[in-house]
Order: sequence, then C-alpha cells, then structure tokens
Amino acid sequence: MRISIAQLNYHIGNFEGNLKRMEAAIDEAIQHNADIIVFGELATTGYPPRDFLEFRDFINRSQEVVDQLTARSKDIAIVVGAPSVNPVIEGKDLHNTAYFLADGKVHGTHHKSLLPTYDIFDEYRYFEPAREFGIIEYKGKKIALTVCEDIWNIGNENPLYDVCPMDEMMPFDPDFMINVSASPFSFDHAKDRLDILKENVKRYKLPIFYANHVGAQTEIIFDGGSVVMSPDGSIFREMEYFKEGVETFDLDEVSNNKRNNEQPKDKIQLIHDGLVTGLKDYFGKLGFSKAIIGLSGGIDSAVTAVLAERALGKENVRVVLMPSQYSSDHSVNDARELAENLGIRYDIVPIQEPYNAFYGLLEGLFEGKPFNVAEENIQARSRGLILMALSNKHGNILLNTTNKSEMAVGYGTLYGDLAGGLSVIADVYKTDVFKLAEFMNKDGEVIPKNTITKPPSAELRPNQKDSDSLPDYAILDEILFEYIENRKGPAEIIAMGHEEKLVKRILRLVNINEFKRYQTAPVLRVSNKSFGVGRRMPIVAKYLN
Amino acid sequence: MRISIAQLNYHIGNFEGNLKRMEAAIDEAIQHNADIIVFGELATTGYPPRDFLEFRDFINRSQEVVDQLTARSKDIAIVVGAPSVNPVIEGKDLHNTAYFLADGKVHGTHHKSLLPTYDIFDEYRYFEPAREFGIIEYKGKKIALTVCEDIWNIGNENPLYDVCPMDEMMPFDPDFMINVSASPFSFDHAKDRLDILKENVKRYKLPIFYANHVGAQTEIIFDGGSVVMSPDGSIFREMEYFKEGVETFDLDEVSNNKRNNEQPKDKIQLIHDGLVTGLKDYFGKLGFSKAIIGLSGGIDSAVTAVLAERALGKENVRVVLMPSQYSSDHSVNDARELAENLGIRYDIVPIQEPYNAFYGLLEGLFEGKPFNVAEENIQARSRGLILMALSNKHGNILLNTTNKSEMAVGYGTLYGDLAGGLSVIADVYKTDVFKLAEFMNKDGEVIPKNTITKPPSAELRPNQKDSDSLPDYAILDEILFEYIENRKGPAEIIAMGHEEKLVKRILRLVNINEFKRYQTAPVLRVSNKSFGVGRRMPIVAKYLN
Repeated sequence: MRISIAQLNYHIGNFEGNLKRMEAAIDEAIQHNADIIVFGELATTGYPPRDFLEFRDFINRSQEVVDQLTARSKDIAIVVGAPSVNPVIEGKDLHNTAYFLADGKVHGTHHKSLLPTYDIFDEYRYFEPAREFGIIEYKGKKIALTVCEDIWNIGNENPLYDVCPMDEMMPFDPDFMINVSASPFSFDHAKDRLDILKENVKRYKLPIFYANHVGAQTEIIFDGGSVVMSPDGSIFREMEYFKEGVETFDLDEVSNNKRNNEQPKDKIQLIHDGLVTGLKDYFGKLGFSKAIIGLSGGIDSAVTAVLAERALGKENVRVVLMPSQYSSDHSVNDARELAENLGIRYDIVPIQEPYNAFYGLLEGLFEGKPFNVAEENIQARSRGLILMALSNKHGNILLNTTNKSEMAVGYGTLYGDLAGGLSVIADVYKTDVFKLAEFMNKDGEVIPKNTITKPPSAELRPNQKDSDSLPDYAILDEILFEYIENRKGPAEIIAMGHEEKLVKRILRLVNINEFKRYQTAPVLRVSNKSFGVGRRMPIVAKYLN
Repeated sequence: MRISIAQLNYHIGNFEGNLKRMEAAIDEAIQHNADIIVFGELATTGYPPRDFLEFRDFINRSQEVVDQLTARSKDIAIVVGAPSVNPVIEGKDLHNTAYFLADGKVHGTHHKSLLPTYDIFDEYRYFEPAREFGIIEYKGKKIALTVCEDIWNIGNENPLYDVCPMDEMMPFDPDFMINVSASPFSFDHAKDRLDILKENVKRYKLPIFYANHVGAQTEIIFDGGSVVMSPDGSIFREMEYFKEGVETFDLDEVSNNKRNNEQPKDKIQLIHDGLVTGLKDYFGKLGFSKAIIGLSGGIDSAVTAVLAERALGKENVRVVLMPSQYSSDHSVNDARELAENLGIRYDIVPIQEPYNAFYGLLEGLFEGKPFNVAEENIQARSRGLILMALSNKHGNILLNTTNKSEMAVGYGTLYGDLAGGLSVIADVYKTDVFKLAEFMNKDGEVIPKNTITKPPSAELRPNQKDSDSLPDYAILDEILFEYIENRKGPAEIIAMGHEEKLVKRILRLVNINEFKRYQTAPVLRVSNKSFGVGRRMPIVAKYLN
C-alpha cells in the first residue's frame, strides 16, 4: 500500500483556493501510484478559522469542498480534515473531523477527541469531542485515524485529558496510524513533535503517517515537517520545513526501515526561516506585495528589513530614515549602509519640521511642565505618521520592528514605533535578535557591524541609551523568560538569584503595559508563549503592580 | 434562616482590596443577623482573571484570601467563589469552585460543572469541570450550591452541555439554591437571567439566592442585579443595577412571597448606565482620574464626552477641538456649545500647521498621485498625535469615540480617530448612538440639537458626508446586526430583503477591516456580541472578500 502526504499551505476561508491546491496534490499522488493521500486538519477551511466556525454559511462552504473531494475519491482514497455538524443536539454544534473518502463516498470519519484549549488554541469553543472510537478498514488494512492533539496525551506526567484515543483504538488491531495535524511552529516544537511520535509508535508498535500544514495564517506559522515514522521510532522521513510538498511512501518499506532521516534543527535558523514564511504569507494571503519600514540605524529595524527583503524581494521593500535632532550621525549612516547592502530604496525624511509645528501648537498647553515622554512620543508618532502616509499613498504595509524584550516592558510608543500591520520580531528577545543579526551576516556583512556593536538607544532625548532605564538585556531576558514563558512568580525568580528590586520592577512593567500590547499588531509567533492571541491578560488587573 | 447577598465590585488580582471589601460586607451581614453571606464567582481574584490563572503565585494569593475568609467564618457562614487546585493529575489544573466556609473551616465545596467557552468566556482553558455532585448541609438546611453557568442548561432547545447539575443534586432533597455568579452585562441580559432563574425555581420548586458581580473589568461590565426568587417564580428582590450592596433576606419570607420586585429595563438607560460604569471603573481600577477627548462637533464624540463627564466629573474631562481646512463652521460651534453645556475645559488646536509640515515633507514622495486616504489620514493622525501628547503630558487617558457601525466597516483611521485607551461607544450602533443622545437630552439640552440633526461627516475632504460611501445607517445597522450578532450569511441577509450588491459590499468591508479592529482599544461591551475579546477573527482570511 502506498500513502501520500500532502504538506500544503492552506488559506483560511479560501475554499476555492484550498480545493485547487488539494486537487493538484491528488493528481500528483495518483501519478505516484498512491492508494491514499493525507491532507491536514481542517484543511478545507485553513487553521485556525476561529469564529468563522460559528457561521453556518462558512460551514456549508467547507462541506461543499468535502463533497467535491468525495467525488474525486474514486481513484484514490482521500483523508482530509474539515468541520462537521454534530448531529446530537446536546453539546457544541461541530466536530473537528478527519474524513476518510474512498470510492466516491464517505468511507469513514474520526472526530477529534482531545481538543486543545490553551495558549493560541480555542478548540473547545467550537467543537464537541468524540467519545466513541473505531478504526477505518480499507484495501485489507486497518487504519487508526486521529486528529493532531489526539496522539499527544501519552506518557506525560501531567496529562491534560482523561482519555487516550489510541488506547481506545488498539483493541481493533490497526495496521498503521494516520494523523492529520495543524501543529504550529515554535523554534523547539519540531523536536517535541518527533518525541511524541516516537512515544506513540513505540507504545503501539505501528508506523505513523503524520501530515501537517505549512505556511502562515496571520501570526501563526506552520513549519510543515510532516513525518513518516517506523514502528521502532526511526524516522523514515521528516519533510522539509516551510515548504509545500507531496511525497509518497510504501507502507512495507516504512515498516521495515532502520534509517533516521531528520531535518536539522538550529534554533536561530528556524526562527529566521519561520519569520520569512510568516512575512511572505501575511502579504501573499492579504493580496499585498510591498512593505515599508522605518530604519533607525539600530539592530531591530535592521533585522526586520533583512527579513522583509528575503521574504518579499528587494524591489518590494522600501525604508525611510527619519532623523531628529537627537539622532546621532552614525544612525543615518548605519541605516543607509544597510539599505545599500540590501539594494532597497531608502528615503530620508527629517522630522524636525512637523515636530516644531506640533511643539509650537502645544507649548502653551504643556503649561511649562518639563520635557518628558510627551515630547519623546511626538517624535516617535511623527515617524509613525510619515510611514503610514507613505503606506496609504503607495499601498505598502508598514512593518513593526519591536522586539519581545521591549514589547514586554512597554519600551515603545503606541501609534509611533509600535505602529504597523505586522510585528515581525516581537516574539524574539533582544538577545536572540543579536544572534539573528549574526546569522544574517554569516555569508558576508549585510547588517553593518556598527549596528550590531553599538549600545542600543531609542534616541528620543540627548545621549539616551536603553541601559539608562533597563538592565542589561541578558539579565532582562532571563527574568522575562521565567515570567512569560515559565509563568514563575516573583519569589521563584528572586530565588533563582536575581535582585529583588529589579525583578519586582520588571514584572510590574510587564503587567502595567498590557494596554500597549492590546493595541499592537499581530506578532509572528516563534516561541511557545508569544504576545497576542496566545497570552490573554486583563488590562485593569492589580497584580504585581 | 437569614441569607445575605453581597453584590460587590471586585478588582482583578487586587487580593487585598477584594478581601477588605468582603470583610466589610461580612461585618454588615453580621449586623443584619445573617446566617450565611454569599459573594460572587471567583470573588477572590475578580473576573475574568484570564491567563493569570496559569501563575501558581496568583493562585496561592487567592488561596490566602480563602484562608482568611475561612478564619472569619466563625460567626457567619461564607459562600465565596475562588479557583482551587485540582488534586487529580488528569485534566486541567484548576477547578472554578464555590467554597462554603463555616465554623472556621471549609464546610463544603462545589466545583463548577458547566464551563462557558464561547464569546468572552474561556473557562475550559483553565478549569476542569466537576463530574460529581452533592449538597451542603448547614444549620438543619440542605443547600444546592452552584456556580453561574451551572444553572443555565435547562429547558433550552439546544443545550451546550450534556449534564444538568441541579438535576444531579435534586435526589439529595435540597431546601434552597445558592448560585454564585459573574454574569456580565449586556442590554438584554438581565431579562435572560430572570427567565433562566424562573425556569429553575419552577422546575425544582425551590427558592434561589443568586449573587452577581457589579462594576467593570476593562471591557467587561457587570450590572449586578442579584436576585432572590421565590419557588413560584415571583421576584422577591432584584438588586439595583450598577451599584454595590449587601442585602439580607429571610428564607421563610422568600419561600412564601407573592410580590414581584423587578428593576426597570429600558435598553437605552441600561446602555447609558453600563457605559458610565465601564468608564468609571476603567479609570478607577487603573488609578487614573482624568480623560481627554477630541471633540469634532459630531454626535459620537459628543455622546462620549457626556458619558465621560457623568462618569468622571466635569473637572476631570477636557476636550480639544482640532479644526482643519475641511471643517465646517458649525463643527467648532457645536463642539464649543457642548463643552460649555457640560462646563468642561476645551482648547482649540487647528491642525493646519502640522498638516502643512507633513505635506511639505511628503509631497515629493507622493509622486503626484491624487489626493486619497493618505491625506485624509494625515489629518486624523495629526489629531491623534495632539491628543496623545496632551495625554502624555498631563496624565489624561484618551477616550476613543468610534461607534459600532464605523468600527464594523472600518470607517476610521488607525492611530488617528481610532486612537485611545478605551473605546467607549464602539459596541453601540450609530442608530442607537442617536437614541443615547436623545436620552441624554431628556431633562434639557446637553448635546446641541444641530449635532444630532446634521448629516454625519468625517470632514476629511471638502463637503464629505458619511452617506457618500455608506448606506443610510438604519439599513447599514440592520445588515451589520444580522451578520455580527446573528452570524447570518450573505444569502440569508439578502433573503431578508436587502440589496445583494450592498450586502456583499458591507460584509466584505467588515471582513477586510479585521486588521483595524485588532489594533483598537478595548471596547466597553453592552451587547451580546461586541468587537474585541468576544469576537475572534483571523486577519488573513479570504471569506466573503
């Protein structure tokens, strides 16, 4: 028996586009003499469709795609994820279903049983879990068919769920496993995925065919990395990251495999490639091609510009240098050098005139109060306004260049440097932004050395440095990681050896700046806990502040 | 037996403050000779604590409050909602628990069984549902204790859940019901609440004591309206909306009641009072007192200014009039008249100079392309910048004045008129904004008549009117309501008699403007489907657009 895995880039709600992509993959699999082709979870709709799932019209359009695929299943069996209407009146209206289509009919279905409802996932918001389990019989083989999370409740010390679908299916004596997934990228998730697949194949002594999505949907990036694993845990094939593909495998070969065919997993490379994918699909799926970026001469905007150039091409990226009286000479020079290295258009628009115009209007109303964040923010917001005006005039999407450390402590101006349609590196801590810059320079200097080595500064007042108000980024990032990723409390973080006063100040800064993060653009997600949809905090809380 | 209901304004994460409030209520109830006092759901933490529930430190601090209340329960039994740690390793880490504290000990607990996971609710993200049911025995009475949603799965045609906690408790023969709730306000929710309580008391032939929260937490408003209902469905007491209170009731009197003591439920009055509460608590809980608003002379900013004055006091609200070359004379006059009526400070800051400065800088980069949204937005963003500069200098929170109709179709400028810390009326359709204005004028003209009667206009180009690009608001709001509140598809809305081309255009506008709503301030929620946390949509989707 030959099984194809289609690792595709679906687009939420683009039913026609998704169907076309799947039809092309079916043609390819038939060329490969495949018996079965496996698509991803909720492949008809794209993932995550969120509250569109509450629209009956949306569900009907997805069902039409399932119907068309059913008609196409005469020459090949098709495994595809789609929402289905729960026929039982009690419980949620939908199931998250894997269809097994064959001989022009629905040959079988499996409804997802374990519904992730944490971090970026909201599945119990929409879906009723399956409580009955069976297997699919096809061409003399018995297939245990599961959806994504269904195979993740095994061997954990603290399982989230109280049922294990594969345990329920084993009495039916399956020959192999198929899992349709929509498993989002984070820089260490591919390893977790292989670990959990290994636990499954070893426990059940069965090979598995695991099909994932690839490509990005707003902030959520899918890396692909679909897996075919042999019963002993050896990796027959881990498909390429961030790339569509249809590959076909022989069940007997997989069952008798001993080799390990794993993709390399360098953290910084993965973040780099993930962000390029995220950028490419944000533009592509919205029907835009051109980006605009404010280039300060600092490392964050430099790294963002390089990522944009790699995702969109140099002809599609333009940058604007907007010096003020507080900008140092090297800022403009470093920014210009980067633009020249990348071969992208740059313009210089000094902000002194609008700043003076605003200051003239407002000086009286400032009532003699001293220079403070108000004047700093006039600068940042004048820059934001210039970038948005060019964006509106020429149809470029403004990219936001904030990093995760700044985003965490609120070091940025709403409607100013926090403006933009997409936050490119706001899930990358400053210490990793430096590593990204080094990585980008590995085959020759793209980002000017001075940009990497000079002390970070917002340049909003004379001789300002980040270190005036923030600790060393190495220390800051450690504290932030323990609080944000590990959800540690102040006592625990202090017990790790950090200064009490500093820890309390940083945690307070994180919490009082929730209002800023609420209004910032979606953040391309590369870690296990990014700001935005995966981290939901109340604004008016009084906790640690 | 005498039972007190404490309808309190909790504050998320403010453990000390919440404990103090509850202790004061306990003192009052003891004065009333109460045997039991009932607080709200998750009263220790405030509702909704969201992802703070994932922090063990946060849970420990809540537990300390429970411990302190336990110690206080020697003279009175205390019913209080709090998260508790799930001792079973499988499943979610927490329960959403109602504690029954008496004689200085934990006398009993009930874990919430029905966990709302829809709209603004994410309870299954955090909590494991109860699957076992019992009752509390105290001073010779048997009490069926439930948490909020637990009593909402009765008599519905399409129940969300497959268990009914009260049905499970009835075999234990309870004497009365207590429900601890955190049931958010919407303008028709108090009626739904009474309806469901009626169904419960009639089905089980028992009185109920229902304690709700009051006050707002960011965008979510609680109206209070706690209820004591007699077994025949008559309302012994519906407590006042939007007001804290401790009231004590005699069980025998409640059981034999025949009167109906219901609060009035005028939609516009409720929206008005809800928004005033939302404003007051947003400021109060963040520790701010002063607001700033851009006043255009139009109805949206006028209504927002009146709400702010009523919530914060005239000394705490200032407005800025920012005319451009496209502003009509009446705009400034109408705005000034309103400010004078309210007795609030106003300043006039014309935006021509910064506009000219930006235009001078950008004209060459606009490359001769015609006047478009870029120039319009420079005006709106110059205003946003001026307001934010004053906000930053003087510590006023900028209020956003967008209405729900505009927010839906993206009729507004990001970082311009969409700026602000809180969106005050963005859950109120334009047709209801007019009704709010009339309501505000009922005891004398506050909002100038001309503001209400003139055709709405953004005044960003010569002689611009909303009706140039949008249909009549009555029609627009109908279409939006069917799509947003009722989740109808285009075919269904067209079948209701609306023009096909218009319906498709409007639905497309709603969907392509998701990116704007993503970056707008939290929206005070007064309907059953407001933008923000209760309506979660992907940005890059290609559905109906």
